[in-house]
This record gives sequence, C-alpha cells and structure tokens, in this order.
Amino acid sequence: MALHSMRKARECWNFIRALHQGPDAAPVPQKDAVKRIFSGIQPTGIPHLGNYLGAIESWVRLQDEHDSVLYSIVDLHSITVPQDPTILRQSILDMTAALLACGINPEKSILFQQSQVSEHTQLSWILTCMVRLPRLQHLHQWKTKTAKEKQSGTMGLLTYPVLQASDILLYKSTHVPVGEDQVQHMELVQDLAQSFNKKYGEFFPVPKCILTSMKKVKSLRDPSAKMSKSDPDKLATVRITDSPEEIVQKFRKALTDFTSEVTYEPASRGGVSNLVAIHAAVAGLPVEEVVRRSAGMDTARYKLVVADAVIEKFAPIKSEIEKLKMNKDHLEKVLQVGSAKAKELAYPVCQEVKKLVGFL
Amino acid sequence: MALHSMRKARECWNFIRALHQGPDAAPVPQKDAVKRIFSGIQPTGIPHLGNYLGAIESWVRLQDEHDSVLYSIVDLHSITVPQDPTILRQSILDMTAALLACGINPEKSILFQQSQVSEHTQLSWILTCMVRLPRLQHLHQWKTKTAKEKQSGTMGLLTYPVLQASDILLYKSTHVPVGEDQVQHMELVQDLAQSFNKKYGEFFPVPKCILTSMKKVKSLRDPSAKMSKSDPDKLATVRITDSPEEIVQKFRKALTDFTSEVTYEPASRGGVSNLVAIHAAVAGLPVEEVVRRSAGMDTARYKLVVADAVIEKFAPIKSEIEKLKMNKDHLEKVLQVGSAKAKELAYPVCQEVKKLVGFL
Repeated sequence: MALHSMRKARECWNFIRALHQGPDAAPVPQKDAVKRIFSGIQPTGIPHLGNYLGAIESWVRLQDEHDSVLYSIVDLHSITVPQDPTILRQSILDMTAALLACGINPEKSILFQQSQVSEHTQLSWILTCMVRLPRLQHLHQWKTKTAKEKQSGTMGLLTYPVLQASDILLYKSTHVPVGEDQVQHMELVQDLAQSFNKKYGEFFPVPKCILTSMKKVKSLRDPSAKMSKSDPDKLATVRITDSPEEIVQKFRKALTDFTSEVTYEPASRGGVSNLVAIHAAVAGLPVEEVVRRSAGMDTARYKLVVADAVIEKFAPIKSEIEKLKMNKDHLEKVLQVGSAKAKELAYPVCQEVKKLVGFL
Repeated sequence: MALHSMRKARECWNFIRALHQGPDAAPVPQKDAVKRIFSGIQPTGIPHLGNYLGAIESWVRLQDEHDSVLYSIVDLHSITVPQDPTILRQSILDMTAALLACGINPEKSILFQQSQVSEHTQLSWILTCMVRLPRLQHLHQWKTKTAKEKQSGTMGLLTYPVLQASDILLYKSTHVPVGEDQVQHMELVQDLAQSFNKKYGEFFPVPKCILTSMKKVKSLRDPSAKMSKSDPDKLATVRITDSPEEIVQKFRKALTDFTSEVTYEPASRGGVSNLVAIHAAVAGLPVEEVVRRSAGMDTARYKLVVADAVIEKFAPIKSEIEKLKMNKDHLEKVLQVGSAKAKELAYPVCQEVKKLVGFL
C-alpha cells in the first residue's frame, strides 16, 4: 500500500504542478469520467481574495461544466479549533451569502451545511475504526499545527482528515478539487476507500484529485505566506467586501522590492509577482498580457491599477452580498433545501454502508 | 480539574468497593435523584454468565425501579476491533433476544440499537473537538489493549470513550451503572459534561456512577481472570444457552484447589469462591447461606450442585431465547421501535447542542 500511495501522491503532485504552470497546461479530466464532484469550505465568514481565486471561482466553473456537484460549508471541521458560537453562526450565513453572490447556483450544484446531514459523522466513525494513530500523526498539517501550540491540538484536529474522507466518500464522489496542502489528505481518502472496498467488497469509487485553475494568493505583507483570514496584520488580507478605500490602502501598503519595474518573477520578486497574479486573475487576462500592459509603470502606480481591478471585480459581488445578508431567512432556507438534497444522496449510501458493516 | 477528577474517581471507587461487600452494603441512590439511567452492552451475541450476573440482571432490576431507563446495544463500539459483518448482524439480534429473554421489557425501558440513532456520532464529534490526545492515550484500557498488539489499535479504539460520553450525555442521563473497568471512562464523561457546560452554559447533568449489585464472575479455568467471551479456553466461559451437558462439563472441569471443603475466601481460594459466588447469585441467596448449605460436601460434588443451579436458573431463559431467535422480524421490530423512541429523546438534545455550538 505504501508504494501505491506514493504513486497516487506523485500523480496528485504532477496535477498540481501542471496547474501552477497555468490553466492551459493542466490536463482537464474527461467530462464522462467525472460522475460527481465534492468540495468543502470552512465557514470563515466573508471570503478573502485568496479564498475567491483559490477555490470559489473554480467552483463556479465546475458547477457549469459538470452534472453532479456538491459544495459543503463544513462547519463540523471549523470546531476543530475554538470558535465563538455567535460568530460561527454568523460566519456560516456570511459564507453562504458570499458563495451565492460569487455565482454558486443552488439550481446547478448542491450547496449545503455539513452538520445538517447526520450521515457525515456516521460514516466518519466507521472510517475512524479503519485507521491507526500513527497514520494521522504523520500528516504534515497535524505536525505543523501542533508544533505551533504548547498544548497538543484537540482530537478533532487530529481526526478531521477522516471526517473529510467521509465527506467525500458519502456521496460516492469521483473527483475532488484540491490544493497542494490537501494532497496528503486525499491519499488518506483514497486509501480508506480502497481499504473499505477490500474488506466489504467494491463499493466506493476511489476519488481523484481534480484540476482546476486555482490560484495561490499570497499575503500582501509577506509574499512567502498564503493570504489568510487569521493573519494578525490586517493589511495582509483583502476581503471581498472591503470598501474601495480599504482595498486601495491595502494595495498601497503591499510589500514589494526596490525595483520599480513590473515583472512576473515569483521566485525572485514575490511581492510584485503576487500583485501581477492577482491582477491577471481578477481581470481574466494571461499574466504576460498584464505585464505587457504595465510597461513603463512603476510599482507604486501599478499598485493602484491592481487595486482598481480588484474593486471593479468585486463591486457587484459586494453589493449582492450586502443584499443577501439582509435576508437571513432566505440564507437559512437555501442551506436547508441544499442539506435536504444532500441528505437524499447520503442516506441510501449510509444505509448500504451499515448493511455492509453488519449493523443492518 | 485534576483534583476534582480525583475526588470523583474516589467517590466512584468507594461505590464500587461498597458494592463488592455485597448488595446490602451498597448505598442506593434516592429514586428522586435518578432522572435517567443509561447503559450500553456490546453485541457479543449470546451473553455468558459474567454478562448476565455482571450487568443484565441489574438492568432488569433498574428498569423496574426507575422511570426513565435506556439500554443500548452499542454496535458502533463493537467495530473498534475487527468484526465479520454477518456474525456482527447475527450477534446484534442474538443479544436482543437474550436481553428480552432475561427480562428486559421494552415497555419499561427503551432498548435500542446505537447505530440507528444518528445523533450519537454527531454529539461524539463535538465532544471529540473538546478532548486532547494525551488524555485518551493515558486511559488504562487503551494502554492495556494496545500493549497486547504489535500494531497500535485503531483510532476507533482510542476514541471510543468519547463516543461513550456521547451515548450517555445525549440523553441527559443522570446515572450510569458502571463496572470497575469503566471508572476512568466515567471521569472522562463527567469532565466532558463539565467542560461543555463551562463553555456553553449549564446544559448537561454531570452523570453519576450508579450502584447495582453487580457480581464479578471469573473464568472457570483461571479465577484470576474475568469470564470472557473471547477466552480461548472454551471451558472457561458458560454461555446462558449452553446445554445442560455443556454446563455440567464446564463446572466439572472448573479449576479449584486441593482443599476439598467448600468455603468463600476469594483472596486465597479463588476457584471455589468463584463457584460459591456464582451459586449464590443464581440461587438468589447470600454467600453465607450457600456455604452453610454446602457443609460436608467436597468440591467435586459441589461443582455439580452449582451446575444444577445454573441449569435451573437459565432453563426458562434458554427456551425463551430459542423461541425469540425463530422470529427475526420481531427482533428487528423491537430494535426499530426502541431506536425510534431513543431518537425522540436524542434529537431535541442534539438540536439544542447544535444551537449552543453555533451550527444552528
């Protein structure tokens, strides 16, 4: 199994490498092969630029291109670290509003709240009985996250990759859009699907990493780090509902270097290259075209151009979010209807699993 | 919290010590204080003498004495070690038949199958996010069970005490009949209830250990070990459906010592004292009375007396089990009806928990 896992990991990495060479270089899976796509997002409230360009934008495209697509607001995962209940509730609704405003269409994809579909934790328990402690302790994310803390993380933080496997397998998903940091977790999902099939007979498709043109957005204040909601430096992260003034201020203060020319050299010029990447992404243009158009501009001037492009891109989304946030009942209804649809798919799978395991 | 835990543990131990001095010595909780009793049993198929005298007999008494009593066949716990699905399914039904035959009355208590009530794993996930790895790794049972194996146990085996806490708290249980080996796990349940209440406001009663006159039955072949279903020596364990011939054979081969007199000295004469304890329990007599009646008898002869008492005790139960096992539909129906009743109690508690956590 170890060799097998390594091969799978290599495949995933190759996918992701291709991905970072730009969308054109990425092998797109045949539509027929993609039976069902699953992805989840934590309810962090209003998404930032990194969430949007890194995941949400590609979610919108995937729902248009494929027939069966599920997107889950994974609130069960969010409590693996401490949460304030009132803020968490608001964040779930805010994320729902943001996803809808960004173009997630509940008629085309199933948008639902993980904790409303009880089958997630049921399958997760069964999978928990198929994995051993060292396997989870050796996952990079656990090691990284617990290395930072004095106390070890909660058992939730240790076992959440198993719940993630359940999220995916519960819908017999065939494809999952993944980021680099999730490759190891996808191997676990694949191994659990195979272990289950070996023990109980062929049942779960072994899900594949799916390629999307996800962009990795860096912190505006430290181009070596990912843009993150929890960045203590408030200038590092642009939320998609920031006011035009905030956006201008954040880009103005973005860390660049002492060369004034605008070029795309991520390895040597992380700061300005991040701006170019953001600009290209929000303008829907190739990086080369963006660089060409910025010829003769210094970085100070260019920062304002990028800020303008970001403001223009998010203005309609921001106003739609504001409208949606006024109607809490509507947002709750969207999640209820979506969760009912998800449950319709999850329930029979979970019943089958229970029969296979011997409960029924 | 550590000191507090120690005090709670001491209370539990005192209860249990009192218990082993005989039922009369055990302080019985006030009926009013007992709002709800929860207990679970693994679906190991037909119970043995140890299960019956150690738990089931007291379950029957508790359902008669208290208003709200829940008994769960905890199939989710059983998969923390490998199971054959066909055998597991049969074992669930066999255990149901046995419990009914032993006197568990679904009109007086709620008898249900854990995996049919999805709220168990939902609450368990929330509690999993409130406990840290070292706490579970330091539990005696995990240490003992994994010390025996070359590979470490599954994550299910490590985290099952959290699922157990969920089983109990989900019904806002106030009392739980426990054996010695569960005292540490009850402390975890109490700590989780308190941690939850501290974080989200007073919600769960902190459940107490309940005293029952549970008897600890030893292996017939090794009086230093508990009677166990998985004992490799088939003569060590008496199942309540064994034929009279099997029962006679097992007691005839029971390990005693070279003193022929019948006495009750558990510390120095484990073998014969185990026989006396079994005899007293099945005959419903005090140990002293049983010893008095055996005066002048040698252990070889006494073994047959005990075997006869066991056969007489279990004859009606055995025939009832055989009758019930013929009607699989009825057994499934009993579990379905019971599980629906349990769910009626569990659902609103789980919804409240989800609101408190911020999911709803």
